Amino acid sequence: MSRLKNDTLIRALLRQPTPYTPVWIMRQAGRYLPEYNRTRSRAGSFLDLCRNPDLATEVTLQPLSRFALDAAIVFSDILTIPDAMGLGLYFAEGEGPRFDRPLRDQDTIHRLPIPDPEEQLGYVLNAVRQIQRALAGKVPLIGFAGSPFTLACYMVEGGSSTDFHVLKAMLYARPDLVHHILDTNCRAVTGYLNAQINAGVDAVMIFDTWGGILSTPAFREFSLAYLERIIEGLSGGENGEPVPSIVFTKGGGQWLKDIAATGCDAVGVDWTTDIGAARALIGRDVALQGNLDPAVLFSSPDVIRKETQQVLSAFGPGGGHVFNLGHGISQFAPPEHVGVLVDAVHELSRPFH
Amino acid sequence: MSRLKNDTLIRALLRQPTPYTPVWIMRQAGRYLPEYNRTRSRAGSFLDLCRNPDLATEVTLQPLSRFALDAAIVFSDILTIPDAMGLGLYFAEGEGPRFDRPLRDQDTIHRLPIPDPEEQLGYVLNAVRQIQRALAGKVPLIGFAGSPFTLACYMVEGGSSTDFHVLKAMLYARPDLVHHILDTNCRAVTGYLNAQINAGVDAVMIFDTWGGILSTPAFREFSLAYLERIIEGLSGGENGEPVPSIVFTKGGGQWLKDIAATGCDAVGVDWTTDIGAARALIGRDVALQGNLDPAVLFSSPDVIRKETQQVLSAFGPGGGHVFNLGHGISQFAPPEHVGVLVDAVHELSRPFH
Repeated sequence: MSRLKNDTLIRALLRQPTPYTPVWIMRQAGRYLPEYNRTRSRAGSFLDLCRNPDLATEVTLQPLSRFALDAAIVFSDILTIPDAMGLGLYFAEGEGPRFDRPLRDQDTIHRLPIPDPEEQLGYVLNAVRQIQRALAGKVPLIGFAGSPFTLACYMVEGGSSTDFHVLKAMLYARPDLVHHILDTNCRAVTGYLNAQINAGVDAVMIFDTWGGILSTPAFREFSLAYLERIIEGLSGGENGEPVPSIVFTKGGGQWLKDIAATGCDAVGVDWTTDIGAARALIGRDVALQGNLDPAVLFSSPDVIRKETQQVLSAFGPGGGHVFNLGHGISQFAPPEHVGVLVDAVHELSRPFH
Repeated sequence: MSRLKNDTLIRALLRQPTPYTPVWIMRQAGRYLPEYNRTRSRAGSFLDLCRNPDLATEVTLQPLSRFALDAAIVFSDILTIPDAMGLGLYFAEGEGPRFDRPLRDQDTIHRLPIPDPEEQLGYVLNAVRQIQRALAGKVPLIGFAGSPFTLACYMVEGGSSTDFHVLKAMLYARPDLVHHILDTNCRAVTGYLNAQINAGVDAVMIFDTWGGILSTPAFREFSLAYLERIIEGLSGGENGEPVPSIVFTKGGGQWLKDIAATGCDAVGVDWTTDIGAARALIGRDVALQGNLDPAVLFSSPDVIRKETQQVLSAFGPGGGHVFNLGHGISQFAPPEHVGVLVDAVHELSRPFH
């Protein structure tokens, strides 16, 4: 791990001692930063930005020059995979992602291809290589993908939804079709994450953004089982060093023990969960990542420090904690409050180490 | 309780023996029923329908003539209270509820009045009396209100939202203002539910639809504490008979023990929770209501029966279970599938009693 000047994130994910709790922020390169919005305007669309390794590198690094963050995360989107499968991703202004060709019938589903990462997602791998050159070991770089289930939600629904009732109707009426999509997604995600590892990322995260819309038995069958297969299929780093994995199911507070048992190194915890209770439940074999309520950033420096202290105290002493928000940062968060948060985590966490 | 020809709901809520598990469905009088849509067209707007006791009675009874449901629920809306407070409720077509005058500043918040139920919400109480005359004891009638926190979400935000970031910003930046709104809502809801009890409802339910967006400490401070105050303030029925209470926090699966400790008779459980685990956690002192995934209704009679069996088996033998969906029924659910569900609950639950 000597390549990294700051390896606190990797050490915390591997439950090794660190002098303080490392912190990064989901969606840290995003619309709350004016410099991000400027780069995005230059790029054209959000997808153009994702597909341009120069500009993706630029926005990936922007939050690091403002804040003492302990990790970078590749600027990309979880829907690059279904896009590479030919579903025709686009972003309708103010309405989130859409697919031109959602999966609605058996023939289309059975023809769903597994993309070749180097061929069809080479722009992400090029961004990984370029970001790593620019970072020069300053902090670790996190690669990521959406969970098979979360990708299936968008692929069947054709876009975002409050309840994904088209996908859920298919799940109960034609579970065989949903399993076919999930199996395909699972192979695609595993290959894609391994390609990111080969390209040089230091850790990987799987975003199961919509697993929380499932019943407990359905979560186990349609999301968890595939998360487990991905974790089993992940390769190590170039010289055999570990590339830790993080699994985050939003709304998964009731299933943390199941998620911890997938074999991942860390479980992401959303802001609704008591992280102290989560730690008591899971023990020390798996690290936890989270979980400040993103809305705390709308308050004041004093409240941010108080709420940060609350999360650190709830987690308690010892390692295995990566501080983060419990969900992606809001576009309305004041950037200066992110600085207050990052500094508060570093300062206030020292007594716990 | 002799007034009721079918008192299985009341008995189950009070953890008394019943020959089968009673069932009703959240939003059972709603858009999935063609006869509801016809009555609503005649009424004009959704609010006109709520405010017309004749038509509110008509739609309340509609699902009972189709299905062997064990309860009726007053046709109304949780936002009648903030409307009666002067916020100017309206429903934008296809966009859900909106307020003309959301709560955004200290002066308006400090002037927020507590409505007089008979004066300002008399149309709901008249509907209760008229529905009870029409029901003639066939099944119990459930009255309801929104939780203080859930009402505050809409009142501050001015409408629905995916994250209620305006309310949450106020919660962290000006908790005093949010507590003032919650205290006012708490008094208003308690008075309103007691007025419904005086008008003749047989049970009451509090919908904490948005409690699940809070962190665990914030849930306790901003939602749970007020739920507890309401439960404490509820009066009994006319001749001293109990009027059982149900508290339902959507997304509250991690806090069921806290909710059960409010003193309510039953805890509503959304579809994400394993109802068997919930029962093991809470014990037998409080009943549970729920929790079939509403999306199961999109499948087939066979799957509906299988999934109903799964919920009944997870809950296990003994009383204290009211069957319901884990969330309101979708407008896209086929009505004939509701009949399959209701009959399946009655038939398949007998071996557990």
